[in-house]
Formats: sequence, structure tokens, C-alpha cells
Amino acid sequence: MRIIVDAFGGDNAPLEIIRGAAQAANEYGVGIILTGSESIIRRVAAEDGIDLNGISIVDAPDVISMEDEPRSILKEHKDCSMAEGLRRLAAGEGDAFVSAGSTGALIMGGTFIVKRIKGVSRAALAVLMPGDKGPFMLLDVGANADSRPEMLLQFAHMGSIYMSSIMGEGKPVTVGLVNVGTEDTKGGELQHAAFALMKESGLNFAGNIEARDIPLGVVDVAVADGFTGNVILKLTEGVADVLLKNIKSVFLTNAVTKLAGLIIKPYLKGLKKKMDTSEYGGAPLLGLSKPVIKTHGNSKAAAVKNAIRVAAEFAEKGVIEQISMAVKATSETGE
Amino acid sequence: MRIIVDAFGGDNAPLEIIRGAAQAANEYGVGIILTGSESIIRRVAAEDGIDLNGISIVDAPDVISMEDEPRSILKEHKDCSMAEGLRRLAAGEGDAFVSAGSTGALIMGGTFIVKRIKGVSRAALAVLMPGDKGPFMLLDVGANADSRPEMLLQFAHMGSIYMSSIMGEGKPVTVGLVNVGTEDTKGGELQHAAFALMKESGLNFAGNIEARDIPLGVVDVAVADGFTGNVILKLTEGVADVLLKNIKSVFLTNAVTKLAGLIIKPYLKGLKKKMDTSEYGGAPLLGLSKPVIKTHGNSKAAAVKNAIRVAAEFAEKGVIEQISMAVKATSETGE
Repeated sequence: MRIIVDAFGGDNAPLEIIRGAAQAANEYGVGIILTGSESIIRRVAAEDGIDLNGISIVDAPDVISMEDEPRSILKEHKDCSMAEGLRRLAAGEGDAFVSAGSTGALIMGGTFIVKRIKGVSRAALAVLMPGDKGPFMLLDVGANADSRPEMLLQFAHMGSIYMSSIMGEGKPVTVGLVNVGTEDTKGGELQHAAFALMKESGLNFAGNIEARDIPLGVVDVAVADGFTGNVILKLTEGVADVLLKNIKSVFLTNAVTKLAGLIIKPYLKGLKKKMDTSEYGGAPLLGLSKPVIKTHGNSKAAAVKNAIRVAAEFAEKGVIEQISMAVKATSETGE
Repeated sequence: MRIIVDAFGGDNAPLEIIRGAAQAANEYGVGIILTGSESIIRRVAAEDGIDLNGISIVDAPDVISMEDEPRSILKEHKDCSMAEGLRRLAAGEGDAFVSAGSTGALIMGGTFIVKRIKGVSRAALAVLMPGDKGPFMLLDVGANADSRPEMLLQFAHMGSIYMSSIMGEGKPVTVGLVNVGTEDTKGGELQHAAFALMKESGLNFAGNIEARDIPLGVVDVAVADGFTGNVILKLTEGVADVLLKNIKSVFLTNAVTKLAGLIIKPYLKGLKKKMDTSEYGGAPLLGLSKPVIKTHGNSKAAAVKNAIRVAAEFAEKGVIEQISMAVKATSETGE
């Protein structure tokens, strides 16, 4: 198993990426191919005492940044560390690719360099979110602004296969359609049509789920168009941030409240862990012909290591093959 | 000033509605017209010692429930307390209408009994949300599942006028378009077209706002299609509920954490107040030819009282006339 890792993606690149890659190579025994400036990688590794044994480097000095147009990965930045990694993946030099870099560029590069599975209309970016009952998958969260009903059905199939294979030990998982009410007739044209398709799909379809119930984790896979999914992902972060900031400031009111804060602090660790999604190993880009994982831009070594572990599982467990078969089956039945 | 109040809308009807109406009559000196079963209203008032002086009653024994189809307000339930109130409003017997009943029925009844302002494509339900920097308005939150760009522009005008008149003492307010990024080119077709319209509108347009920034209250009026707005409203409640429930359970871990909980409890009041939107007086239904306010289904007397106060301001401050002029002006310039 060889995982290709973009050493220059994200806020903490290259140090935390190299660290995480070295830890993964050591702990999981996977081969690692780092893409990026070889001289910088070697210098940073030497300065930090990171052992590069079992890690090969593909020299790609250019970097695509968050500010660059996603499309530039095919043009001005076609030789950047991310593009180079995707090309090596497409050429079969590695089994999966991990990057903490620009999401837009990764979707663009993934779609045009790695290419989609035959029959898949659009690749979807799928995140694992903390639910009250455990983690659940939300997709699409940004790959597609305007979605058609058939795309939502494919997202449902792809999400189910991934969650069942990677998170659920092969057990069947439930799928819900994000909507403005639980009744079958809720929503706009997109939801009406997607609901009808999902109901007939053979998926373990739990029907519509309201936004209010999403954080409870009432389904394993929550399907939405990319616009709505992105809003859900970012609003969840925003509401949690504002609320926790406000609660923190209450604890800072005076000496007595500070004492209460000191008492409670160690007990909040469990909650923090529950809300931390970095151990789930990042967001898969589903629908591509090879496994690609996006890790959060602020990923530290541990998150990178976990993403590499999950990328290896993504490749091992035949997720791509299962998606390919599911897409073929649905297109044959005329869906 | 006479406010018509649906005495049989919401979970706590009729007692809390009658209480709130009596308090408003007493504190603000507004005339109140209650719609609903006169015999029940008189009995409940007598049992609870509520003074009905200055309150007239229009007997309408039927009630439309949350489970009834919204459309039934025009058919099977055309004589319910909500429909009767809307008819009296349309006939000019009162200056504004307040209900805690079914949102769907209120939108349906408002649109077909009270009717829209000439030139308004769709009425929008607008909620006041707690923002970190203070309350802000979010619209539309559910009146319209499929929206066109011109509707979003009208929502922006209507929301600005309301917020400036009722919450901002006539001062100009900022408007943002909910989107998946802050750059001008973000989003799907609907957002692209709405952005262009808003930019040229003469509104104090702050551009696109990301879902992550919505809870901060970065703009006074956040505009979204009804589907997205509804998801934002309900997800905000859902995330806050799950988070607070989890924090509460941390405080219940053991005797020491319970002590910390007792210490901090009184200090959390300020935060609770900040998050409580009931004092803002409910959600206006904007675009109708008369003021209609929806209060939360779980409203208690204080929330009903506040809604009546705001309904009176809604009527007094000429919001409807301003919306009518703005709509006329934009349609004349060809927008």
C-alpha cells in the first residue's frame, strides 16, 4: 500500500504534514510518497529530526494556495505539489492521495486529472461530522453549487458505501435527505424529485430529515445539494464557536466563576473529543476513480496520520469498485 | 391602535395568549380583539382572574392545528380563529394581527385573505435571530421553497425597511446574501443573479456572507431562499440545543462538577437572555398588505405581549407603505 501525500497543502505545511506522514509510515507500515519541494522537505525533516526512511519524494516545487483560482491547478499551477500528486495517483504510482490544500483546487484537479468513475455525474465532497449519537456523513458540502435530483441519488449511494465500508464494518447504514420538514411532500422541486428517487433506490432510506435533527446524528448519511451542505457544515462550526466563546467568557466573569471554570475544565475533555472530527481522517472526495482524501486546512500531524490510515482503508476496502457497481446498476434500471 | 390576536394559536393557547393580550392592553393601552371560542376565552379568563376590560372578542370556535394542511385555512377551516382574525384585519377592523399558530396556515391565509402588497412576488417569513453582535434578521425562513433572484431582492428591501424602522430607529442597516463564500462569484445560479441585483439595488449591500459568520451577526439582514433560510434557522437551534445539553451533562458528572454548575448558573442568565429572541416580538410576515406577526408556537404571555407591542410598531411606523414604495421604485427601474 502506497499513499501519496501533498506535503505543501494546508496552514501547517510542510512540517506537520511530513511529521504525520512519517508517523503513518512508522505505525501502519504504509509506503509514503511526498510531493513538494524536495530540498525544503529534506531540510525541514533534518531540522526537526524526522526520519524519512520508507518515504520517497517527488520534487514539485510549485504550490497552489487558497487564494489561487481552483482552475489554475490545470493551468498556471499544473506542476504544483497537489497536481503532481494527483497525476502520480492517476498513473497508478500510489493507491490513494491525501491533501490539506485548497478544496476547490482538489475537486478541480481530482475531476480532471484523476477523473470520475464512469457514470458518476459529479464528485461529492463528504465530511464526517460529530453527531450526538456518533459521527455521521454529510455530503455534498461544496463540490456542486447547482445539483440535479439524480446527483443527490448518486451522493446517497456513494455515501452509504463509504460509511458502511470504512466506518460501519460493512453493516448497512441509514440515509436521510436534508429537507425543511419530515413529511414526504416537503421542500422544493429538487427535494421532491430526489425523495422519489431515493425511496425507490433500494438504499436504507430514512426519508427527509430536518436541519434541527442533523446534529443529533439521526442518520448515518445526510444528503444535500452542495450549497445546502456547505451552509450546514459552516453554520455548525459557526454556531458552536460563538456559543463556546460566550460560555468561556461567562467563566471569566470573576474569581468565583474562574474557580468553577478550573473545576470543570478537565471534564470538558470528553465533550471536546466527541466534537473533534480529526480522528475520522478527513473528508473523502467521492465519485473519483481513485481514493482522494481532503484533510482540514489546519491539520496537525495526528490528523494527517489519521487521514493516511483512512486513505489506505479507502483503497483496501474496494469502495471505488462498489461505487462503480452501484452506479452501473442504477443506470441500468433506468434511474 | 387595535391589534387582532388569535387566541387559539400555539402550544399554550388560550391561557398564555389571553394573559399576554391582557398585559399588552394594560401596559401599552392598545385595543385588543381576540378571535376564538368566546365561551372558552371568558371561562379561562374568569378561572385565571384575567381582566378582559378593553378586550373585545370575535367568536370563532374552530381551530386550525399544526397537523392540518395549511391550505385547509381556505377550505375546511375557513372559519377558524386564525382565518377569522385575518379576515377582520383585511376588513380594516384592526391594525395588525398576531398568531402563534401554524406557520404554513398563516402564510397561506395571509397571502390569500390579507393579500400581498401590489408588486410583491412572495411574502417572506422573517425571524430575528440572536447574533454575537446583537439581533439580526434572517429571511426567508420557510415561506418559499423555490425562489427566484428577484424575490431575494424584494426580501432584501423588505427586511431592510423592517429592521431600520422597528429595530434601528430609522438608521440604515446592512444586508448580506447568504452564500458558500464571500467572493462575488460564489454560489449557484440563484446567488449569482441575486448578487448582481442587490449590488445595483441602492441597498446597503455588504455582499456575500458565509454561513460560518451568520451567528456573529455580521449584517443586520441576512437574505436567503426559503429552503436555505429554514435550514439555517432550524440548524442553529439544533446545534445550540445539542451543545448545551452536552455541557449540562458534563456538569452532572459528580458532586464537584455539580458544585461548579451551581456556582456558574446565575452568571449564565446574561447569555440566556442574549440567546432569547422572544423579547424581539416574533417573526413578521413581510410583503402582505397589512402587518402580520407570527410568534413562536411555544410563546408564553411575555412573548405574546412583546409581539403585540411590535405589531403596533409595525403598523405605526409605516413599514407597509415603505415596502410598497420600494417595490414600486424597483419595478419602475426595470429590476
